Amino acid sequence: MSTRLAYSSYPFPDASGVFDGHPAIGLPVTALPTPAPLIDLPTLERNIATMAAFFADRPAAIRPHSKTHRTPVVARMQVAAGAKGVTAPKTSVAEAMVDGGIDDVFVANQVVSPAMIGRLVALAGRARVSVLTDDARNVAALSEAAAAAGATLDVLVEIDGGMGRCGTRPGAPTVALAAEIARAPGLRFAGVHVYEGHLVQVPDRAERTRATEAMLDLGLETAGLIRRAGIDVETVTCGGTGTYDISGVYPGVTEHQAGSYVYMDPGYQRKAPAFGLAFSLLSTVLSTPSPDRVVVDSGLQVLSTGGGEAAAKGHPELALKGLSEEHGTFIRTDGGATGLRAGDLVEIHPGHCCAAANLHDTVYAVRAGAVEAVWAVTARGRSQ
Amino acid sequence: MSTRLAYSSYPFPDASGVFDGHPAIGLPVTALPTPAPLIDLPTLERNIATMAAFFADRPAAIRPHSKTHRTPVVARMQVAAGAKGVTAPKTSVAEAMVDGGIDDVFVANQVVSPAMIGRLVALAGRARVSVLTDDARNVAALSEAAAAAGATLDVLVEIDGGMGRCGTRPGAPTVALAAEIARAPGLRFAGVHVYEGHLVQVPDRAERTRATEAMLDLGLETAGLIRRAGIDVETVTCGGTGTYDISGVYPGVTEHQAGSYVYMDPGYQRKAPAFGLAFSLLSTVLSTPSPDRVVVDSGLQVLSTGGGEAAAKGHPELALKGLSEEHGTFIRTDGGATGLRAGDLVEIHPGHCCAAANLHDTVYAVRAGAVEAVWAVTARGRSQ
Repeated sequence: MSTRLAYSSYPFPDASGVFDGHPAIGLPVTALPTPAPLIDLPTLERNIATMAAFFADRPAAIRPHSKTHRTPVVARMQVAAGAKGVTAPKTSVAEAMVDGGIDDVFVANQVVSPAMIGRLVALAGRARVSVLTDDARNVAALSEAAAAAGATLDVLVEIDGGMGRCGTRPGAPTVALAAEIARAPGLRFAGVHVYEGHLVQVPDRAERTRATEAMLDLGLETAGLIRRAGIDVETVTCGGTGTYDISGVYPGVTEHQAGSYVYMDPGYQRKAPAFGLAFSLLSTVLSTPSPDRVVVDSGLQVLSTGGGEAAAKGHPELALKGLSEEHGTFIRTDGGATGLRAGDLVEIHPGHCCAAANLHDTVYAVRAGAVEAVWAVTARGRSQ
Repeated sequence: MSTRLAYSSYPFPDASGVFDGHPAIGLPVTALPTPAPLIDLPTLERNIATMAAFFADRPAAIRPHSKTHRTPVVARMQVAAGAKGVTAPKTSVAEAMVDGGIDDVFVANQVVSPAMIGRLVALAGRARVSVLTDDARNVAALSEAAAAAGATLDVLVEIDGGMGRCGTRPGAPTVALAAEIARAPGLRFAGVHVYEGHLVQVPDRAERTRATEAMLDLGLETAGLIRRAGIDVETVTCGGTGTYDISGVYPGVTEHQAGSYVYMDPGYQRKAPAFGLAFSLLSTVLSTPSPDRVVVDSGLQVLSTGGGEAAAKGHPELALKGLSEEHGTFIRTDGGATGLRAGDLVEIHPGHCCAAANLHDTVYAVRAGAVEAVWAVTARGRSQ
């Protein structure tokens, strides 16, 4: 009897990713095979409530970015707390969110390949779907597909606010593209997107505020020009966790896409201290090559290296020395003994929760040291 | 009808990870949703044949590291070409390899948690399984579990050859641990492992050779001391792709664990030019913010950032500017125009194939521009 066959006797998750009756439910976390991805439920619930409360009485709505968790169960918690819908990084993540019960998804990206345009338009027949563009040929392709399917697709123009990635230039080029969308069959011009991704981690708060507001001014001026051209601009959307209380309250902004706050990262937390670290990898000490050093069984294949430094929960005396594929090495920088030995358990917070979450098919939701629920990360690996 | 439900009508792969009758088989690669993980079959076959030919008449055997591909179909190709078995980074990868038809797996790591020791010993009842240790308490735990299960587990001592991760010190401490293993019920002392992971990427070939051989001398001297203590040392194992023709031919070495050669990385290739780049992500140009720059739909969530720089296949004029989660930006460093526009297809080779392969559940095996086979990456995400 193979382990894979044994796994297939697990209950399948439902469409929203809940494993009812998973054999891990009720177990102490110490019984899990490590590395084990854990979600600390009290911290997760507090993070969601904190963000929801911040936006509850504001002009702008929160539309959390599902790229962080890729888990419909978490998205449903965010919507239940007041989020308007979710943001998705790609069409295939949006599909997973709709399959999991979310009825309003914004794909904050260009969709240009014929296969993915087809899937996007099909999804727009099942839920409210909006998408970005920065190109007239792309507008024509989206329009043709939507019209042929009898669907209506909400389209926003991505304005490059200085990040230098995708996006139109503010001003006339954006107005022209908005007009193109407004008259395209099957499409509805829904607004503009301008993203401060290059600014959300600026360490100095005053500098971060100044630069973000300058960027937003470009987007809002362009939104004004579009309105003056007789085209309604329903949505002005932006945002990341490092600026939720800057761009999220700036007059004229209607939606904010913060994502990382829900799991949070050790480094990012210094810029958004209202949120706790909800995601960790329960890890086993494999070796203690010297008294000041421990090697754990969590490496870059479970923590990722996508920016930011991993940290050992409850061990401020330990610093990350390095990650190899299947090993993480931590040291006491003061040269003292760690007091840990092979077999001991340590929780490691990933340096970049969005990249780490995309490495795990399921996560264990934990309260008071026991597994309360098991969730499928149904959008894991979905980058199409 | 949801996309997820449509997916579930796909044929399931067999235990070795082959999708018979997958609807993508026979399609031109241009029909795949992007980013799409591609394996170039002629390059893969050539890489496997080249490594097999190198070891065919040598004293040492090749035991390729399955951490690179995590795909039993590829492991079976390696074994069919002459590999002795495979190396695995963790017990759960070893399980996937045995499930996929490999009958000899070396777990080149410590296994210390009770849950994983139990799974390792169960696996040893189904295949030849060997494992590393560097600790007497771990030896006792392995012995107790193996004896209780009536299994025999091959155990090697990991010697720290200067990498500073896991491992015993060369000389007396290693001899003592070998003796401990040799007398432990349920265990068989199988040899020593010493790994030049810190040396495989040394750019200067002469310096790489000198340092690797100095490290091997430490391991081989210790193997001599163990033999003098009356204990047989069947296996002396080491190796990475950057040193296969250094440590793989060093007298006294019996097995080599090179892994990356099978898919290869753009940077690593400079140290092992006999191997081609077999793994890529078929990507779509999303945007061309300036004539010298393209943004593709492959970012760190499909390419990973685990060391090394991604490269655009067939486009030596393009250099990686940066990866964000779902975007890759490439520029012409000479300021010239790329000639690409939104919607064009480009293949991107990941900077670190082992980390990138662990992001994909299935890969498309391609010959002459068409999908010849679809393989399940059954060990993806298995880091326990």
